Amino acid sequence: MSEETNFLTLDNINPYIIELQYAVRGPLFIRANEIEKEMAKGVQKPFKTVIKANNGDAQAMGQKPITFFRQVCASIAHPELLNDPTFPADVKHRVETILKACNGYSIGSYSADLQGLEVIREHVAQFITKRDGFACSQDDIILSNGSFESIKIVLGLLKCTIDGKKPGVMIPIPQYPLYSAILTEYNMLKIGYFLDEANGWSINNTELERALNEAKTKHNANPRAIVVINPGNPTGQVLTKENIQNIIKFAFNEKLLILADEVYQFNIYAKDSEFHPFKKVMKEMGEPYSSMELVSFMSISKGYMAEGGIRGGYTEITNFHPQVRAQLLKNISASYCPNIHGQTVIDCVVNPPQKGDPSYDLFEKEKNAVLGSLKDRAKLIYDTFNSIPGYSCNEVQGAMYAFPRVEMPEKVIEIAKQNGQEPDEFYAFQLLETTGICVIPGSGFGQKAGTYHFRTTILPQTDKLKEMLNHIKEFHAKFLKEYS
Amino acid sequence: MSEETNFLTLDNINPYIIELQYAVRGPLFIRANEIEKEMAKGVQKPFKTVIKANNGDAQAMGQKPITFFRQVCASIAHPELLNDPTFPADVKHRVETILKACNGYSIGSYSADLQGLEVIREHVAQFITKRDGFACSQDDIILSNGSFESIKIVLGLLKCTIDGKKPGVMIPIPQYPLYSAILTEYNMLKIGYFLDEANGWSINNTELERALNEAKTKHNANPRAIVVINPGNPTGQVLTKENIQNIIKFAFNEKLLILADEVYQFNIYAKDSEFHPFKKVMKEMGEPYSSMELVSFMSISKGYMAEGGIRGGYTEITNFHPQVRAQLLKNISASYCPNIHGQTVIDCVVNPPQKGDPSYDLFEKEKNAVLGSLKDRAKLIYDTFNSIPGYSCNEVQGAMYAFPRVEMPEKVIEIAKQNGQEPDEFYAFQLLETTGICVIPGSGFGQKAGTYHFRTTILPQTDKLKEMLNHIKEFHAKFLKEYS
Repeated sequence: MSEETNFLTLDNINPYIIELQYAVRGPLFIRANEIEKEMAKGVQKPFKTVIKANNGDAQAMGQKPITFFRQVCASIAHPELLNDPTFPADVKHRVETILKACNGYSIGSYSADLQGLEVIREHVAQFITKRDGFACSQDDIILSNGSFESIKIVLGLLKCTIDGKKPGVMIPIPQYPLYSAILTEYNMLKIGYFLDEANGWSINNTELERALNEAKTKHNANPRAIVVINPGNPTGQVLTKENIQNIIKFAFNEKLLILADEVYQFNIYAKDSEFHPFKKVMKEMGEPYSSMELVSFMSISKGYMAEGGIRGGYTEITNFHPQVRAQLLKNISASYCPNIHGQTVIDCVVNPPQKGDPSYDLFEKEKNAVLGSLKDRAKLIYDTFNSIPGYSCNEVQGAMYAFPRVEMPEKVIEIAKQNGQEPDEFYAFQLLETTGICVIPGSGFGQKAGTYHFRTTILPQTDKLKEMLNHIKEFHAKFLKEYS
Repeated sequence: MSEETNFLTLDNINPYIIELQYAVRGPLFIRANEIEKEMAKGVQKPFKTVIKANNGDAQAMGQKPITFFRQVCASIAHPELLNDPTFPADVKHRVETILKACNGYSIGSYSADLQGLEVIREHVAQFITKRDGFACSQDDIILSNGSFESIKIVLGLLKCTIDGKKPGVMIPIPQYPLYSAILTEYNMLKIGYFLDEANGWSINNTELERALNEAKTKHNANPRAIVVINPGNPTGQVLTKENIQNIIKFAFNEKLLILADEVYQFNIYAKDSEFHPFKKVMKEMGEPYSSMELVSFMSISKGYMAEGGIRGGYTEITNFHPQVRAQLLKNISASYCPNIHGQTVIDCVVNPPQKGDPSYDLFEKEKNAVLGSLKDRAKLIYDTFNSIPGYSCNEVQGAMYAFPRVEMPEKVIEIAKQNGQEPDEFYAFQLLETTGICVIPGSGFGQKAGTYHFRTTILPQTDKLKEMLNHIKEFHAKFLKEYS
């Protein structure tokens, strides 16, 4: 292979793919994997293990799966297990219900419906109806291989240049970089609005208006949608009902589609926090808001189930014009169907064992143990970060992350500049090489100029998390000594 | 909901999504589903069941899954089953090998490697090395949720306008409409080259040159790649080695990336046909061809396994520049990983039970039964179609489809024109409403002007297929009587 024989080079491939960045699996993550491989080969490091606090992968950090979910996944793959006397009756019932909906009574066939199996979409609709007190139709539910896929499809629908104006989408800063990556690939304008760190990362309409006006006047953009991540990633806030109402009013006035990323809706820890679904708030507000279009994303990768490797999620589209919905569905038709195990876990999540069912007690025990422990860890990490001089951290009200702010010595800012790095990137690399702890610098999510952060998950099991926090504390003290 | 409150309308969403068409799950398929629902409600029809011969979904048509594959899928989801004495030792060994590669020893975690689990990619590389006699590296293997996803990612890489010229991709006509759908969404030029029906749907370099020149001169396009589907879909041909050599030479001269869709590589039926992988042929040809870039797609949805609902596939990228490969991988990094069950089935496909393993005999029996029966059905459908006056059909050498040509009476062509339909679409709708048989009109795949075809799968089980062919024969006789 030589340069001469390559028909594909950086000069002639899609420039937007070259431009896009996805920090969560970027250079820090890649280096963490390399270090692990070096250690496996016997290279000595100043730490015993690499701790990957870079992404929300709870089972990788030792969280155990929910027994009921896995018994269902096993027997749906191999229905002979339905004769196994150790499998509870509600597992068998669940598997039979789903298999009856599969052509040929097998998970090897494609789902007949483009949107995923009808029986599962019906269960999702019932779950949402019960959660919100407002009707949801299975026609408005689209199952997927996870929210990445769904977000990409929905954003793709908005890619439309009108009167020479580039389509734009409002995204929070800091934001989960999946949004910026997709918008870059689509060559759509990223209209960043800053979350208010001083007020618990809440969303402020004055800032929304500032961002929107700048996009219109400076960039000649046509804003089409606003993304809200609640509970927040990477910032861990849970929005109040009032905050959500204000966002809805803003979106209505500006004719923006709301994309509500609600994948952490089960992950609420703070005493005074409650999850308010956009759909419910919008419906409660009455007309004209209750007729607005809304898209909400949910995933099996987070919550208490954390089944990221199985890949599954659902999207609810509210108040879409039937013609537009038909176009959205047509565009997913060539992908055939989301994987049936993922669909199956969605079914278990929205329709878990009920009181009186044989699997109920164990399910409740397992679920509550995970959520209780995550709550304790959210508190531990918040308390610890605020005890470190130079660190400040908002309460981890929900989701799976803390996003502490770190004061950087001037010397670090200079060195980083010389290296062509962001100061918090320099900090995160130093932390990784010194302690084996992999976090993602705030610059990968976006932050106000002159402020520096990193995102860490709260997912290491409690003992490991304590150890990790101690290492960060020690590291930071030495770091300050070295660079102050 | 009213028109006034909708921010999204057909006038302001992505026009390329509105334009795209995917016939395999288009109007015929949607109508077939409606008819099934009508019948479930008690509506009387002139037939007892709907036969969905519209897509390659073997398990939906009664094909049974491979026991070894499903035992592995079951116990990887619920490793307690490894204690089950009825599960053979090679199932347990396989599950342990894969779980060891999963973070947290669980399929609930994301794969550490963006490309899928390293151990599975290693097995894929060994399979290809053994198949071709030329080395394949795991670095060149990318696992996926099925080939749709991979094809979309690879075509996306080529989306690059240079000197104002629209990028174009050569696709066969007839073609599997996934390609045209993706190219339409990407606003890339579809450069159709006609397969030679009179010569068993082979590919002819004169025609390739004609198509390419037309794209350059008439459309000011920049051709970047050529798609070859072998064995063919919808056409069922298996290309000879000489034919493949000619295509490779053409691609080299024109600096085109070859995309080899080889998902039907296990589905070879004709006595004189053999599957020649593009990679192998290219390597055998020596320099300069052996250094050319090549992409090959494989899937778990076809072959003898037919696990479409589990969603899995792999892509081999050959001779890519490392910088270009890095860009491709970066663009899949935000999707986290393909689902682990799909990855697991890929592992079983490329590394099935070997002689002496406890699961070997049953595996061989099950695999050979499926492939043997498909071979018989390929012959049956070919013989029957050629016995129908007005039908002619090339031999089904491989894949899962027949694509017979049907002479259309003038009257039908006129009626269809009045209805705004293609004549073969009219024919297929008549067939569906009269017999319950769902096939896809040739116009959904593309065909030479003035010729009319349809695609049917060969997948109904033998008795059902005989019945189906009889119904088509009777239908056609009546149709000719009515419209001649």
